[in-house]
Amino acid sequence: ADKASSTGGFQIKSEDGNFEAKIGGRIHFDANYYTDEDDINVGTQNSGNDFFFRRARLTLEGRAYDFKYKFENDFASSGAGVSNNNEGLREMWIGREVLGGANLRLGQAKPYRGMEELTSSNELTFMERPFATATGIYGEQFVLGAFLDGHGEGYGWGVSAYSPRSASDANKGGNGANARGFIVPIRSNGNLVHIGLSASIDKYGIGNEKNPNVRVVGRENGLKSGNLLAAKYDEQTTIAAELAARFGAMTLQGEYAMAAFKDTITAVPNPDQDVNTYYVQASYMLTDHVKPYDFKKGVFKSPKVDGEEGALELKARFDTIENKDISGNEASYYTVGLNYYATPNTRFMLEYVDGETEVGTDKSASAVTARAQFNF
Amino acid sequence: ADKASSTGGFQIKSEDGNFEAKIGGRIHFDANYYTDEDDINVGTQNSGNDFFFRRARLTLEGRAYDFKYKFENDFASSGAGVSNNNEGLREMWIGREVLGGANLRLGQAKPYRGMEELTSSNELTFMERPFATATGIYGEQFVLGAFLDGHGEGYGWGVSAYSPRSASDANKGGNGANARGFIVPIRSNGNLVHIGLSASIDKYGIGNEKNPNVRVVGRENGLKSGNLLAAKYDEQTTIAAELAARFGAMTLQGEYAMAAFKDTITAVPNPDQDVNTYYVQASYMLTDHVKPYDFKKGVFKSPKVDGEEGALELKARFDTIENKDISGNEASYYTVGLNYYATPNTRFMLEYVDGETEVGTDKSASAVTARAQFNF
Amino acid sequence: ADKASSTGGFQIKSEDGNFEAKIGGRIHFDANYYTDEDDINVGTQNSGNDFFFRRARLTLEGRAYDFKYKFENDFASSGAGVSNNNEGLREMWIGREVLGGANLRLGQAKPYRGMEELTSSNELTFMERPFATATGIYGEQFVLGAFLDGHGEGYGWGVSAYSPRSASDANKGGNGANARGFIVPIRSNGNLVHIGLSASIDKYGIGNEKNPNVRVVGRENGLKSGNLLAAKYDEQTTIAAELAARFGAMTLQGEYAMAAFKDTITAVPNPDQDVNTYYVQASYMLTDHVKPYDFKKGVFKSPKVDGEEGALELKARFDTIENKDISGNEASYYTVGLNYYATPNTRFMLEYVDGETEVGTDKSASAVTARAQFNF
Repeated sequence: ADKASSTGGFQIKSEDGNFEAKIGGRIHFDANYYTDEDDINVGTQNSGNDFFFRRARLTLEGRAYDFKYKFENDFASSGAGVSNNNEGLREMWIGREVLGGANLRLGQAKPYRGMEELTSSNELTFMERPFATATGIYGEQFVLGAFLDGHGEGYGWGVSAYSPRSASDANKGGNGANARGFIVPIRSNGNLVHIGLSASIDKYGIGNEKNPNVRVVGRENGLKSGNLLAAKYDEQTTIAAELAARFGAMTLQGEYAMAAFKDTITAVPNPDQDVNTYYVQASYMLTDHVKPYDFKKGVFKSPKVDGEEGALELKARFDTIENKDISGNEASYYTVGLNYYATPNTRFMLEYVDGETEVGTDKSASAVTARAQFNF
Repeated sequence: ADKASSTGGFQIKSEDGNFEAKIGGRIHFDANYYTDEDDINVGTQNSGNDFFFRRARLTLEGRAYDFKYKFENDFASSGAGVSNNNEGLREMWIGREVLGGANLRLGQAKPYRGMEELTSSNELTFMERPFATATGIYGEQFVLGAFLDGHGEGYGWGVSAYSPRSASDANKGGNGANARGFIVPIRSNGNLVHIGLSASIDKYGIGNEKNPNVRVVGRENGLKSGNLLAAKYDEQTTIAAELAARFGAMTLQGEYAMAAFKDTITAVPNPDQDVNTYYVQASYMLTDHVKPYDFKKGVFKSPKVDGEEGALELKARFDTIENKDISGNEASYYTVGLNYYATPNTRFMLEYVDGETEVGTDKSASAVTARAQFNF
Repeated sequence: ADKASSTGGFQIKSEDGNFEAKIGGRIHFDANYYTDEDDINVGTQNSGNDFFFRRARLTLEGRAYDFKYKFENDFASSGAGVSNNNEGLREMWIGREVLGGANLRLGQAKPYRGMEELTSSNELTFMERPFATATGIYGEQFVLGAFLDGHGEGYGWGVSAYSPRSASDANKGGNGANARGFIVPIRSNGNLVHIGLSASIDKYGIGNEKNPNVRVVGRENGLKSGNLLAAKYDEQTTIAAELAARFGAMTLQGEYAMAAFKDTITAVPNPDQDVNTYYVQASYMLTDHVKPYDFKKGVFKSPKVDGEEGALELKARFDTIENKDISGNEASYYTVGLNYYATPNTRFMLEYVDGETEVGTDKSASAVTARAQFNF
């Protein structure tokens, strides 16, 4: 008989092995408490403090013979304002193995833009991704196109070709291409070194041009950088480097990304502008656990706990982004915090974030942020 | 092996007892036929008569070790107009047992505001809730925060602290707190008496102030009361009392709620206003069934049927709401009707509603309303 | 014990036979590449070429004792612009067998308007439906009401009464009625002849009047006909005929529909206008497969493949629509293409479409379109 099982959601596998399916989801419930919000939330008598759902996703995955699918919707997408009905689509694709081991997907997915970008939001060490991801320097996290990746002993790669918009963005054309490779030269005795490199070219359709305005402190009603570019640009060439290491309980990780923005539309084009960003982060497991490394994706994962004893993790990050062509168009923050992994499905996160932006008027803010997370 | 089962949806329990999950849902399909609509739907040649989905919810629930979750979305929320993408979120929380038997939940849920408010929409005796709930006097049905409840032999309690907005409302800050207690002094020989009391303080963020305008007859294109207050108010203190009893086939229930609205924002504040509301309702089972009482939640439930023989219920309600400080700002209706419980999953409801409002111009309307309901 | 199984999604049946449930879905991921778009997408520097999700549906179905339900939502509905929160509802109903064999459903479903209209989007021979469906001449594909159908040896019928709007349209009243019958006079030796007839009367509520503007080439940013009528009309009477046949590997199908539009609202009514449409299409299975016929619904289905060997199908269609009362208000296209059924769950479609419209300025366009489809 077909075999059904549960690890919080539903799983099934047919007796003949031809079919598999899985229903899961994730709830990320956040609180933001601003310890310094003088420069933001001014002109109103409201404070920016609040509870909100950062993510509420339902995820179906399955396989029928050689083909796989993933069907994922976020019911808590885009907290406010008018939105498109398919705003919630996240990974949504049809895939299969090709070329003797490579993994091909058609639909909506993430381009291979770096370590933190490719880390699942369930497994991120910090509550928010750094600027060297679609949270900062890249235009879109999920795009529509074709995605191909593979891996071998101590290395992996991915290439993608796409329309640089998500399903919820208006169809304005445009196109993009991206590639990433990583190697794991040291991988013995619990120690591990990861080196990665990625490059992306994004040509946005007219009407979908970009001008990054990144979140620096807090998610809702928080401190944003202000527009880092002088205008909206339609072409972005980005290269990024990754360096990470694990020495027992200690994990270190950093990424550096440089984006060159070009205006190819305006009659008298806006001058080219370069935006650079980097972050460094460290984590230390206070309990007897280790952060596993995913050799297929080239990213770190959450420590494995058994449902009996939880894991405790100390963490710190510094993150900064800067327009190299306009003096003062820069923003940065640092975070320190603690993660508690209560069970394989449940995690609690606590962070203190302090950041500033120099775009236009100088502004700074700080906040204590917390998350309760259940993934099933 | 893990054990999968169905009672219309899906359920699974892992062999080791560590994991459980359940997928269910509800479809409530309504028809409204106005027998008197002269005072509404005027100025158009359309009648307000129509079919519509009152609810179309998908609900996932589960447990992994000591933690539980509920993930619920209503796909038929807010019939018309521009809406937020997470408009559909209903109960969405992460919870666990604390303090040796109490139930803690973090996320979106209902504050403990009264008997009918806490009754599941699948189990309500009438198609719509009375004014002594978020349908009338309270601002929001589902809010974001922390919810704690417990119960013992013949009593129960709940307390909540929250941001008084649902996930789909703009984040404007604000905060709220609420508590409820109930006792069941008589609970023998099928007879039962329930006494309850609740209190809530809601401080709405600027931009989320309230001025109740309640539905009196019909759901879509029906008779609404008009704004019961002179302006929008940002602070609401509400106390409410519950009295209910079951004598065999007969169930009686009433609630009384008083809300004091305060304006703490305007330079020259609007004067305080009080709004009172109460309803009384009775139900009589024509077949040999009884309405069970949920000792955990302190509410009545639908009669249990076995799939072979259905249950038939006669019902009547009177409901009224009134601004004590502005003469004429009041509305009321009465309803009589019939419920047919065909199977444990299927119910049909039929009601005649006749109501009036005196806010501004006097208006009255009446309607025959019906519902087909499937919950799985 | 209850029996769970998978054919890509989830299915369960209770041991006592009282309960059944099924979770499935479909992903249709499309690419449109315009080989001639001079008359469209002008005045922008963007091309209309793009990837997009044509459908991303989750479908729950089940039975509890004698009652059935279907709960279906399309997460990729309406690609752009402001939309209603219940935009995604597709089939959503409560049903049961009545009158000894007939099938009654209450909720949202398709009226019985013709062969291609009633064919599941998973089983359509072409990527888009012809004009003799809600894609063209009919106002709404899914409407709210009551649906009754039955079938016998070599015949079938359906009748519906409804509000001519979907759950996401504003409630403006109106009403509609529809009936269809079909016979299968030849059904032997793999050969089959189908003859069908349907009629519909749709009276749209004020504010929901219709003026068809149909897609001729491509889905997003493609060629549309322009409004086929001189104004919006509130009353539509449509009759349609179906003729189809299967001779071994060859399937032929055509439908003819005539709609009479009446204006019953305007003080000086717009003159009556008639719109006619027909299509003819043919398909030939290149592999040793045959297109099954569904004797309950009176439609053709996709060939059955076994997961080992795929099926290949050649296809062609001509489709045209014309306002008989305004010279030049007409549009038409032809399509040729290929379908590859890789597994029971996976299909790939490729089409070349060339079309023109004469409404206002003459315009023509052509495109290569492709789809990857996974249904589970």
